[in-house]
Amino acid sequence: MSTGEFEIIERYFTRASADPDVLVGVGDDAAVVAASGALAVAVDTLVEGVHFPAGLAAEAVGYRVLAVNLSDMAAMGAQPRWCTLALTLADSQTDWLEGFADGLFMLAERYGVTLIGGDLTRGPMTVSLQIIGTVETTRWLGRSGGHVGDDVYVTGTLGDSAAGLALIKERMQEDVPAHTALRERFLWPEPRVAAGCALAGLASSAIDVSDGLLADLGHVCKASGCGAFIDVEHVPLSAELLSAFPPNVAEAYALSGGDDYELCFTAAPAQAQSVEAALEAVGCPARKIGQLIPGKGVECRRDGESFEPASAGYRHF
Amino acid sequence: MSTGEFEIIERYFTRASADPDVLVGVGDDAAVVAASGALAVAVDTLVEGVHFPAGLAAEAVGYRVLAVNLSDMAAMGAQPRWCTLALTLADSQTDWLEGFADGLFMLAERYGVTLIGGDLTRGPMTVSLQIIGTVETTRWLGRSGGHVGDDVYVTGTLGDSAAGLALIKERMQEDVPAHTALRERFLWPEPRVAAGCALAGLASSAIDVSDGLLADLGHVCKASGCGAFIDVEHVPLSAELLSAFPPNVAEAYALSGGDDYELCFTAAPAQAQSVEAALEAVGCPARKIGQLIPGKGVECRRDGESFEPASAGYRHF
Repeated sequence: MSTGEFEIIERYFTRASADPDVLVGVGDDAAVVAASGALAVAVDTLVEGVHFPAGLAAEAVGYRVLAVNLSDMAAMGAQPRWCTLALTLADSQTDWLEGFADGLFMLAERYGVTLIGGDLTRGPMTVSLQIIGTVETTRWLGRSGGHVGDDVYVTGTLGDSAAGLALIKERMQEDVPAHTALRERFLWPEPRVAAGCALAGLASSAIDVSDGLLADLGHVCKASGCGAFIDVEHVPLSAELLSAFPPNVAEAYALSGGDDYELCFTAAPAQAQSVEAALEAVGCPARKIGQLIPGKGVECRRDGESFEPASAGYRHF
Repeated sequence: MSTGEFEIIERYFTRASADPDVLVGVGDDAAVVAASGALAVAVDTLVEGVHFPAGLAAEAVGYRVLAVNLSDMAAMGAQPRWCTLALTLADSQTDWLEGFADGLFMLAERYGVTLIGGDLTRGPMTVSLQIIGTVETTRWLGRSGGHVGDDVYVTGTLGDSAAGLALIKERMQEDVPAHTALRERFLWPEPRVAAGCALAGLASSAIDVSDGLLADLGHVCKASGCGAFIDVEHVPLSAELLSAFPPNVAEAYALSGGDDYELCFTAAPAQAQSVEAALEAVGCPARKIGQLIPGKGVECRRDGESFEPASAGYRHF
């Protein structure tokens, strides 16, 4: 393979944009976009063997690097608009690049996100994507806005993705529908972009569940200067997770497994009906699982009794 | 070392920002900045052993990853404002992190750039930085604006950085002042940010010299749909380069060596006086080295005669 950097960019990563705010796209020293108001900016990196199993299909890698960034936009209540890609590859296999670009653009088109630039380099595989979205200047969702007494919610169901990853890692090839669904949940996470935008101005704080519920809610508590309790029996588990794993394993995945990309958010009790209506309007299920309390850290309760869960979230370092 | 991701970010990468437009900085799901008008967005990745020699001082790596991105802003005529960092490290050595952050923030403070977010991951070392700058909506410098008849200019001197890298790689430790100067030129490149901003609205196109003059001017020609010639005797060489290397080697470095981060730009002959005045106002030397012509590709001339230079720029793939 001797396809050069510029040919690769032209062949795989240059697609016409329908966005009139993209004034200069891929191919110059920098992209130029027309912006106004407040912008949310995030970056997330995926390392093979760390953030996804080695040998994962290229489509799933391309999809994933955008999905995790869209999830950050969701957690800020931002509307994702533009992204740049920093792709480091050991060699330039055209099959892999084509698959990667297909996975990335499939999701980008679904969310109206334009790839405006990037850098392609040779080295150990690292995939990093930067995303820019728009937020209303006074209505974004931070981690630090939670208040004691606010309810703690979570969207969708938790633990499926960690369970799916475990099935993939253990190469459990049983053709059980529940296993397939869990694996798919890991491979093709659906970021909660519409829910995040709907919650802007209603929720007091939000975070996406990427490191695990206990760890991520812990970040909210730290930033908001308070503690939280959660009633573990209220943490939503999918039928697939419950059918494929014993209840204690399912619960551990839901509390500490990462990569669900659901939103964990807080809202004042007075907002409960508005929150419910806003999420119903975008078709996003959510459940109240606890409350912010004085103190610090996250306390797990079962039948009202405090207990110590097994582990507390994924650490990259 | 068991310092966690969050502690590292807090200890090394969280500094108070003086920029009132940074509404949310490091530590949330995304940063939030107040923006208006047009924004230039770029990303550049450095891979150890590819873009800088293995074992390079951490300060120089931190400095470099911002410098190369500032140079992209310069090439667009943009005022750099905010950056995010995607840092992948095999392990979290505190010495290295401290040095890296020092090099990065030294340059960031000099240019008034705020680090607003990032991602720290474990894996083979890759350093990627994304930068956002502001441009006036109708006055940025693209690669595609050149016209046949425009003069071709270059700022500063070329070839020093490639010569300095060669000295570093060959571990030539002679304590000759010229060698020291060339090595410094590679280690601490000074992006032409003020010159780029001064040229916005005057130059017809611009690019920064990162891959080598012939390659980079070739990109301008391709994007502008024309060719160019350069008079190689007009290409500015430093006294240090000329004293340390034979003339033919010095010329090869100047034509094909990368990493100078000077600007190569084009302007209509009618703008010559304005260009000169604008660059003089910011203390940036520049020299006319050729012209855009019909056709395609870059032609080298010596004493008016066309000739074929040795090589044509750095290829990552």
